[in-house]
Amino acid sequence: MTETPLQELEGRFRRFGLMDDVVGILDWDQATTMPHGSAAGRGEQIAALQGLQHQLMTEPRMADLLDAAEETAADLTPWPAANLREMRRQHTHATAVPTALVEAQAKADAACEIQWRSARENDDYESLRPALEDVLRLTREAAAAKSAALGLEPYDALLDLYEPGGRAARLDTIFTDLAAFLPGFLDDVMARQGARPAPVPLDGPFPIERQEAVARRFMKLIGFDFERGRLDISHHPFCGGSTIDVRITTRYDTGDFTSALMGVLHETGHAMYELGRPADWLHQPVGNAGGMGLHESQSLIVEMQACRSLDFLTFAAPVLAETFEGTGDGWTPENLYRLNTRVKPDFIRVDADEVTYPAHIILRYRLERALLQGDLTLADLPGAWNDGMAELLGIRPPSDRLGCLQDIHWPSGAWGYFPTYTIGAMAAAQFFAAAREAAPEIVPGLRRGDFAPLMSWLRDNVHSKGSLLSTDQVLEAATGRPLDPAIYEAHLKARYLD
Amino acid sequence: MTETPLQELEGRFRRFGLMDDVVGILDWDQATTMPHGSAAGRGEQIAALQGLQHQLMTEPRMADLLDAAEETAADLTPWPAANLREMRRQHTHATAVPTALVEAQAKADAACEIQWRSARENDDYESLRPALEDVLRLTREAAAAKSAALGLEPYDALLDLYEPGGRAARLDTIFTDLAAFLPGFLDDVMARQGARPAPVPLDGPFPIERQEAVARRFMKLIGFDFERGRLDISHHPFCGGSTIDVRITTRYDTGDFTSALMGVLHETGHAMYELGRPADWLHQPVGNAGGMGLHESQSLIVEMQACRSLDFLTFAAPVLAETFEGTGDGWTPENLYRLNTRVKPDFIRVDADEVTYPAHIILRYRLERALLQGDLTLADLPGAWNDGMAELLGIRPPSDRLGCLQDIHWPSGAWGYFPTYTIGAMAAAQFFAAAREAAPEIVPGLRRGDFAPLMSWLRDNVHSKGSLLSTDQVLEAATGRPLDPAIYEAHLKARYLD
Repeated sequence: MTETPLQELEGRFRRFGLMDDVVGILDWDQATTMPHGSAAGRGEQIAALQGLQHQLMTEPRMADLLDAAEETAADLTPWPAANLREMRRQHTHATAVPTALVEAQAKADAACEIQWRSARENDDYESLRPALEDVLRLTREAAAAKSAALGLEPYDALLDLYEPGGRAARLDTIFTDLAAFLPGFLDDVMARQGARPAPVPLDGPFPIERQEAVARRFMKLIGFDFERGRLDISHHPFCGGSTIDVRITTRYDTGDFTSALMGVLHETGHAMYELGRPADWLHQPVGNAGGMGLHESQSLIVEMQACRSLDFLTFAAPVLAETFEGTGDGWTPENLYRLNTRVKPDFIRVDADEVTYPAHIILRYRLERALLQGDLTLADLPGAWNDGMAELLGIRPPSDRLGCLQDIHWPSGAWGYFPTYTIGAMAAAQFFAAAREAAPEIVPGLRRGDFAPLMSWLRDNVHSKGSLLSTDQVLEAATGRPLDPAIYEAHLKARYLD
Repeated sequence: MTETPLQELEGRFRRFGLMDDVVGILDWDQATTMPHGSAAGRGEQIAALQGLQHQLMTEPRMADLLDAAEETAADLTPWPAANLREMRRQHTHATAVPTALVEAQAKADAACEIQWRSARENDDYESLRPALEDVLRLTREAAAAKSAALGLEPYDALLDLYEPGGRAARLDTIFTDLAAFLPGFLDDVMARQGARPAPVPLDGPFPIERQEAVARRFMKLIGFDFERGRLDISHHPFCGGSTIDVRITTRYDTGDFTSALMGVLHETGHAMYELGRPADWLHQPVGNAGGMGLHESQSLIVEMQACRSLDFLTFAAPVLAETFEGTGDGWTPENLYRLNTRVKPDFIRVDADEVTYPAHIILRYRLERALLQGDLTLADLPGAWNDGMAELLGIRPPSDRLGCLQDIHWPSGAWGYFPTYTIGAMAAAQFFAAAREAAPEIVPGLRRGDFAPLMSWLRDNVHSKGSLLSTDQVLEAATGRPLDPAIYEAHLKARYLD
């Protein structure tokens, strides 16, 4: 029997999916296991696989197959139709940028990332700037090429890679709303927090084996299947690995168990999304998780909405006290809740609390748009960064290391990525509000350490959808409305002012 | 500047080399790290990469490039010429067998390997036989196809994949010689061993952390670079990983430290070969290690020739005694030497000592040749196996589990592989005899735990040659003569009868 064009495409994209899996394992190994002396070789291995994938994606036969398959697309049921749509989207992103430019970007990004590590360590922005100029120039060229191919504004063409369907016009509205809300809200939160006695700090040391044991215990409560994944240690925590083999990492600090534990719970949320993708469509484009905003919503619903709630901490407090042999006022659910929801404007995004985090994102979003449009030069970036921090959070970084040198995203070529963090935070609040209304057993479950009701709702409403729907469509189907900052703001008010 | 055909081939084979690296890491991960539930997915990932590699190797452009490059081969210096020769050899092996047959073999091998695991566990040869019939039938078809393409006898066409240039006619001569020598020699060894008091056994338990610590210490003495490799645990010990990232494994038995320690030293010998390959030709065919016989010679020269010698054990004995807090007669160098050179005919190849090991190989070599030629049927295999064991070692397996079900090689499709173990043992003895003559500091070095003189000789004479020369050419250049069983027999006599 002859294959149809769509069947041939499915075979080819299945191979791409398996190659993505392989790169996922190689990345994981590099971060956790690989001997130091092998870094260059690993880079060559990954470059060879990705180069091959790009070559296979862009060979002329692919365009012919897509054209042929689309001729009969009207007859397809929703899943195959969405799969074909996602194939076209991946193909357009891959072919929009000329190969020479893709290769120039890969080289410039890699060189800049290396330069960034030493520049950050030495707090020396000027030593980064030439390499970053290259990255920015090539990113603008790529954005122009993608803009032409996708029929989108240049920034939207970059954003679309991380957040399919995401548009700057929409983000402008949302972020303007948030930027208007947050400073005043932050003042209120700080005033209320300042009016009460500080929470009792917990004294360590907290042995790593115990931290790991309780992290694994909570992972199991959430439903993580250790037959289909792992927990390991790496310098930068992440969720990676491959299909049906999802590997999360953390790093432990013996003086503070909360950051590793909450980090593990965050990555477990990502992992549950990956492990809950539609089983019939694994290794097909429509079987992938949705955009990075949706992905972040699944980590934040577990970490921020569920695990930092007083409900879950009511369950967790005695478990943690027993684990670390903690006694006294520090180990009450209320104190743990106050420790886990403490707000403090500070310079570093990855350490930011739930209230100040969006300000870090809004700043980066504004700056990367201005840089890409040419309204801001890299020479003026440090000053613009520090002014923005002063405006949004009322603090001015004393150094670029605590300012515009802190993130790897721009040096590594990830422009248009930052907004997905806050899309995720807002979506998490929106999903959780809808879930607890639709399934009243969710909150009582958390008080017993039972995540099954929450996970069941998430699996049905988010995980199992793969890439069938856009972020807004998933939100509408699950919560009755597209992304709505008002729900997020209501969550913040309820948690931090009530 | 336009690429020459050879330059384009170098680029293509470099990619194949990097893909081999990737499969090496995936295999290592599967054996050491991967969650159990991910086995099927891992199989798909590896199959996708290998299928892609086969597709790229067999596309018509490759044959055109090889033809064009060979037109000017006469002008090439030795290394590029040998590289082109190895490219042609790999290409011929890959294209000789029709794709449909390659795929049928992959399926049959995988199914038979699974069946073999349960058949061995249940000691039920008949439950394996139908699957093994499939494998044998397809192997014969493949051997016929390769025979036509390579202009070799069918068995030689299989052997050539593992032992380039290896020929059954030569093996027949060598193995006939060995088979005539060994039974009488074994009787003499057993008589001598029986006439002396038994060595003092060492009483455990031997904690795993200490076994690992001393294994790492000895690895470092040999020169293993932990910045370019690892030691881990797996059910079946192996040397794997990728270029400049060589990973060996072992398994520990708290009741016996010798088997893990000698296993680690054996795999370290393989690893030193991999890490010593010619730096200018990594990821090119000529930069690969030579045949499996040469590879085994490098593990056995470290384990059997060097580390089980009284010279090295004179250094090792106090280190081991201190490590395991051992006292008394058991921990003298002489007693450790006798424990490490004890001879006992037994049923299982992988547990066999140096004297009886070749008999296991000769048996398998004879049987696989007879099976492939149709002189023996699989129905008669168990009887023929047991008769052969009785003839060669004077013992008759009480079950197929201890007989023809013990090895994975035939079920997994590796026909023509077994002879390389004994080629390796003989070559190890031959290299060591030449090395200690050429570099008199080698043996005194071993007495001090200093492997540098031995490794320097091996690097110059074997490791750095890559695939420039055949096994016999490497032996001739390094020792003055091709593979010679007399040298091996002299080693055995010196060690076991003097």
